[in-house]
Amino acid sequence: SSMHEITCEINHEYSVQCRREENEVYMPFSFIKKYFEVYGEIQVSEGDEKFEFSHSYSEVHVPPEVIRPDGIFMSFEHYNVEIRKRVKCITATEGVPVSTQWEASGHFYPIQIAQFGLSHYSKHLVEGKPTVTRLITGNDLDLDLWAYSSSKTTARSLFDRTRQSDVIQFKTSDSLSNTGLQYELKEKNNFAVTLDFKMISNGSVTASLKSDTYTFHIHYVFSNTLISCDGRNIFFGLGENRRGKWIHLARDVNMDLLKGLALKCSKHRKMKDLTFLGLSIRGQGWVDNVTLASAAHMDHFFDAANWFVNHQDSRGGWPIKVTRKLLSGVMELPPGWYSAMAQGQAMSTLVRAYLRSGSKVYLQAATDALKIFEISSAQGGVKARFANSYDWYEEYPTTPSSFVLNGFIFSLFGLYDLKQVAEGQALETVTRIYNEGIKSLKAMLLMYDSGTGTFYDLRHITVGIAPNRARWDYHTVHISQLLQLSRMEDDPLFMRTAKRWQDYMQGKWSTHN
Amino acid sequence: SSMHEITCEINHEYSVQCRREENEVYMPFSFIKKYFEVYGEIQVSEGDEKFEFSHSYSEVHVPPEVIRPDGIFMSFEHYNVEIRKRVKCITATEGVPVSTQWEASGHFYPIQIAQFGLSHYSKHLVEGKPTVTRLITGNDLDLDLWAYSSSKTTARSLFDRTRQSDVIQFKTSDSLSNTGLQYELKEKNNFAVTLDFKMISNGSVTASLKSDTYTFHIHYVFSNTLISCDGRNIFFGLGENRRGKWIHLARDVNMDLLKGLALKCSKHRKMKDLTFLGLSIRGQGWVDNVTLASAAHMDHFFDAANWFVNHQDSRGGWPIKVTRKLLSGVMELPPGWYSAMAQGQAMSTLVRAYLRSGSKVYLQAATDALKIFEISSAQGGVKARFANSYDWYEEYPTTPSSFVLNGFIFSLFGLYDLKQVAEGQALETVTRIYNEGIKSLKAMLLMYDSGTGTFYDLRHITVGIAPNRARWDYHTVHISQLLQLSRMEDDPLFMRTAKRWQDYMQGKWSTHN
Ligand SMILES: [Ca+2]
Ligand SMILES: [Ca+2]
Repeated sequence: SSMHEITCEINHEYSVQCRREENEVYMPFSFIKKYFEVYGEIQVSEGDEKFEFSHSYSEVHVPPEVIRPDGIFMSFEHYNVEIRKRVKCITATEGVPVSTQWEASGHFYPIQIAQFGLSHYSKHLVEGKPTVTRLITGNDLDLDLWAYSSSKTTARSLFDRTRQSDVIQFKTSDSLSNTGLQYELKEKNNFAVTLDFKMISNGSVTASLKSDTYTFHIHYVFSNTLISCDGRNIFFGLGENRRGKWIHLARDVNMDLLKGLALKCSKHRKMKDLTFLGLSIRGQGWVDNVTLASAAHMDHFFDAANWFVNHQDSRGGWPIKVTRKLLSGVMELPPGWYSAMAQGQAMSTLVRAYLRSGSKVYLQAATDALKIFEISSAQGGVKARFANSYDWYEEYPTTPSSFVLNGFIFSLFGLYDLKQVAEGQALETVTRIYNEGIKSLKAMLLMYDSGTGTFYDLRHITVGIAPNRARWDYHTVHISQLLQLSRMEDDPLFMRTAKRWQDYMQGKWSTHN
Repeated sequence: SSMHEITCEINHEYSVQCRREENEVYMPFSFIKKYFEVYGEIQVSEGDEKFEFSHSYSEVHVPPEVIRPDGIFMSFEHYNVEIRKRVKCITATEGVPVSTQWEASGHFYPIQIAQFGLSHYSKHLVEGKPTVTRLITGNDLDLDLWAYSSSKTTARSLFDRTRQSDVIQFKTSDSLSNTGLQYELKEKNNFAVTLDFKMISNGSVTASLKSDTYTFHIHYVFSNTLISCDGRNIFFGLGENRRGKWIHLARDVNMDLLKGLALKCSKHRKMKDLTFLGLSIRGQGWVDNVTLASAAHMDHFFDAANWFVNHQDSRGGWPIKVTRKLLSGVMELPPGWYSAMAQGQAMSTLVRAYLRSGSKVYLQAATDALKIFEISSAQGGVKARFANSYDWYEEYPTTPSSFVLNGFIFSLFGLYDLKQVAEGQALETVTRIYNEGIKSLKAMLLMYDSGTGTFYDLRHITVGIAPNRARWDYHTVHISQLLQLSRMEDDPLFMRTAKRWQDYMQGKWSTHN
């Protein structure tokens, strides 16, 4: 071929080395990738190589056809909240994630907690009932399968009147060097453990797992430590003050090991060929309903819902206790801010918990969460106004307003869910707030359309700076949200816009004049 | 080299043939150009070839450092309005362009007329006084240089009391086959002819030009024909009813030939090696001040300004008499609409005419042009409101509003010019209208920032459709306008935004999150 080198001068600024063959100039992908923010890689299959060029890296998850307040939440069955690096661990006190985002020491981030709950709820609906192995139901018969660490260990079945069920009473040494009452496993598929127990000594529950030939022990102990480690021992605190009370514990021990390894106490940190070797119970107390399952999604879901019930403040909100700097020096929120997205996601969680359990406690918490929507950002609430015309519920209620799109729409989803189940005054209030929000969204949606993608927020308009273009994974969230809105609202705007935004992901830009 | 072919699969949709050399993949520019809307060409200089890649094709014209109401308008010295294909010709009646845009039969488009005037005004300031050759001042001495076509032709100098000047009285045959009173030239540089004349017969003025060995005759005759042709004869109508009145005619005969050739009467249509062969005057009448010059910018400018004085309606506007379909079926304006841009550009023209001439007629017309700014689009005016909060002066006052950016800013420039010279109530009114506009612009400017370029209008927001991305030449107009605003208004927003919009022209996009 007549291929030869030619210098490409880029915008009279710098040069890259290209190739020329007859009338065609070939530009190196290393340049194209960086200059145009696109992606590509060589794929080899059956000896044939090809180069896969892709405009975007993210995929659109399609929400359910019918939006129900007890249905799958968006496409959250694809989410795995707790595996994210910024989740320190799932607490053993309340079973909710602790976030290290924006503050390394960790804090409870209501949005993350709701998404944790909603993802497990959605996974449960998609996956169906988990495979469950009962290790203890309370019968004497169960005990044949359990080993005693020493002759001092005792265990017997008795009827517990408060629980109205047979339970196992046990007594072993408290020492962690003791295996206590032990159930041996060689389990490679199921890592979800649930159990009910009450202890009156300084007892503990331990899960032992082998990863890549090394054995790790995860101890659930009566301390206030969130998570800690010592060599290949990992500790989760159940809370010091929880002795003498029945505790329902649901753990994904695989995830607990992952979070423990991330603390880097042990040189051996590979997660490989994981085997669940067994479970130990120590101390003096009672235990019932020990199960091993493929998943404990509904336990995790209710842990999240209960957290919202137990931590709602007098304004109906879940204040976020870390500083959030959306734009340094310009858009900052000191600790104690509320988020419309948190309020809305909590509603979606609580409404599902209400419909699943029938307990009005969840419905009341969801209804109380409405109040913050009517308080302006300036007064510590979440309501912003665009051009003094449109109400907007702020994920980050900064002044000047930030108008984050995805957070606003998530808040509308929460309002929508509550609207389906609310009655009387609450129904009136939620309908009004929801309708105002939808009106604003329809008027303002296209402000987020860049013609080649979307904007994450409207900081460019409110502050007069460069637009904050949404990276592709936020862009796909926008699209999923529009698809969901197209099922909630009878307006072709949402589907039409979703389709165009999908086109942008393949480089099909809006036309220029 | 180890260069070989590899198939590039684009977004799983289609394939293009690429080249691979070791770990680099080279993509053909023919693909890149179309996919990313960029430009490039091979340049060879001194035997070295290189490939010039450019993100955009347009250049930013920088406005003057100081904005004055009698100064250069923006960077309009670079404009050549009349050379555009959509300008049918410059009328010989009033000396203004006729537009064929949106209606092939032609109409007077006030924006085009103002830009014609402002460009000549600006060229005059940049170029300085033209080189002028006087062919007739009215003295007997002038006549020695003119040839007589026949013995029946007479010409003599006399004092004209109404003009208070010597003029030449002439009498020749009216026939176009007669050369009348003739001035021969072999002019290759100067094509601007001006003269004052009054005729009481069916006389004419003819300019003869040679282009590419063929001779063409441009006849200015007493008819209502705009422009017509017959072989290599081109006719411009002076207006039937203008006999017996002094006429000041200023023609760029080069441009007149160009427009005549565009009518396609002659097979020979090349503009090449143009020579101005001479000028003929026929009929019975008086003539004075015949000049040949490099340009007649101020004549053209005052022709435009006078057009605005003579065609302003009782509402102070210049209605546009053709249908404008900005967005078919959605944003349409039936004939008779006003344009804030037309009003504003007219103001910029009229204020300059006032300052140049001292004639209050121009100032009054500019002041009267304000009225339309206070009438809403719905009521036939030009004032739109964004989100019921911001006044916006519409280039195209459609319902729903279109919010065209460049037209709005041009209207602000007109208001600014008038504000510098208005007094009393007019000053109060123009200041209020201008300030409201600037307030809106500051609030809304960033809505036009796409992060990679700009939007031409806000149709995407008002109609809920794909954004109308501004092509690069509109983008550069936006930038020039921001540079001008940065000199008018003490707000760093304009310069900061202008700089970023310039960056977009080199592919330096705003960041994504
Ligand atoms: Ca039991
Ligand atoms: Ca004279």
